[in-house]
Amino acid sequence: MSAFPHDLERLIRALARLPGIGPKTATRLALFLLRGRGSLASELADSLVRARKLIHPCPECYNLTDRELCPLCDDDTRDKGLVCVVEGPAEVAALERAGVFNGRYHVLGGLLAPLDKVGPSALRIRELKQRLRRGEIREVVIGLSSTAQGRATGQWLVEELRDSPVRVSRLALGLPMGADIEYADPETLKASLEGRN
Amino acid sequence: MSAFPHDLERLIRALARLPGIGPKTATRLALFLLRGRGSLASELADSLVRARKLIHPCPECYNLTDRELCPLCDDDTRDKGLVCVVEGPAEVAALERAGVFNGRYHVLGGLLAPLDKVGPSALRIRELKQRLRRGEIREVVIGLSSTAQGRATGQWLVEELRDSPVRVSRLALGLPMGADIEYADPETLKASLEGRN
Repeated sequence: MSAFPHDLERLIRALARLPGIGPKTATRLALFLLRGRGSLASELADSLVRARKLIHPCPECYNLTDRELCPLCDDDTRDKGLVCVVEGPAEVAALERAGVFNGRYHVLGGLLAPLDKVGPSALRIRELKQRLRRGEIREVVIGLSSTAQGRATGQWLVEELRDSPVRVSRLALGLPMGADIEYADPETLKASLEGRN
Repeated sequence: MSAFPHDLERLIRALARLPGIGPKTATRLALFLLRGRGSLASELADSLVRARKLIHPCPECYNLTDRELCPLCDDDTRDKGLVCVVEGPAEVAALERAGVFNGRYHVLGGLLAPLDKVGPSALRIRELKQRLRRGEIREVVIGLSSTAQGRATGQWLVEELRDSPVRVSRLALGLPMGADIEYADPETLKASLEGRN
């Protein structure tokens, strides 16, 4: 028999579905959330509801946004001809924090992972080709992590874009091998952008 | 400038207020929650709202419950004369999972922590004394972790209950020194209950 009320068990189960959070941690987090008047619980619930309702992928680059177009696609001072293909919104944020890229993005929505059954059809390659067909883009920078998965996905992208008239470049391997782009420091990101080939 | 929409930043900030979760982990969790159709986000929001609305401390023992009295206080087969004082609901759950205690509980609501400004007034000692004054309780078992904080709080409880007519016992130090009661295995909990002194 559980000593916890039903709705607390339900909260623990929901928290335990988050990556890296097991049942013990989920229990500790749930009890922390219900402490005092539960003001953190209501703040978290409210921000979850709002984020889920208002945030959606940008129809142009598939970065997350709460507007019709994301602020990056809507910014005319950014180079429309240069598009950096990244894994997800966290990687867009890392590159923007570094402040070293003035083009647009294309969020692929993941990396190829045959063991996890993530194949080409799960990634937004069709959407990228549609953007290329509009003719405004002159160069695609492959901005994927230099992990095995990132490099395999980059190699696959190069093949996919072989028949396209655009220039295809990659971040230089100024990124230390095996590093995750989300955690790279701005100097490393800058070096790899400048050395793109 | 942040590349994330305002409501996503707000969600990240709320998650980062949880214990053991820094800004990087909070960002990863928030993006995970918004993946796909956000069904986990809505499940989590809904269970937070329900838990916060329906769950409250039992007016008798201060364990969390969604009923008027918690199921343990409402169970007439449990010994009313024997009360185990514990730190919080997680410790009640650990003892109940072990299934080795058939009395009632009193949830103290924390441990003394002078460095974190948790003094005696923050713990439910007044409520415990009120229960003792009703005369039904013959023995109080101090069921606190054998950490430095738990032992100091236990020592303070012994002093506080010195003038009370009830018997005061402690879990035997069958608990390995420095262990947290929440993680103790049932056999260790059983041995420490039987050897109480």
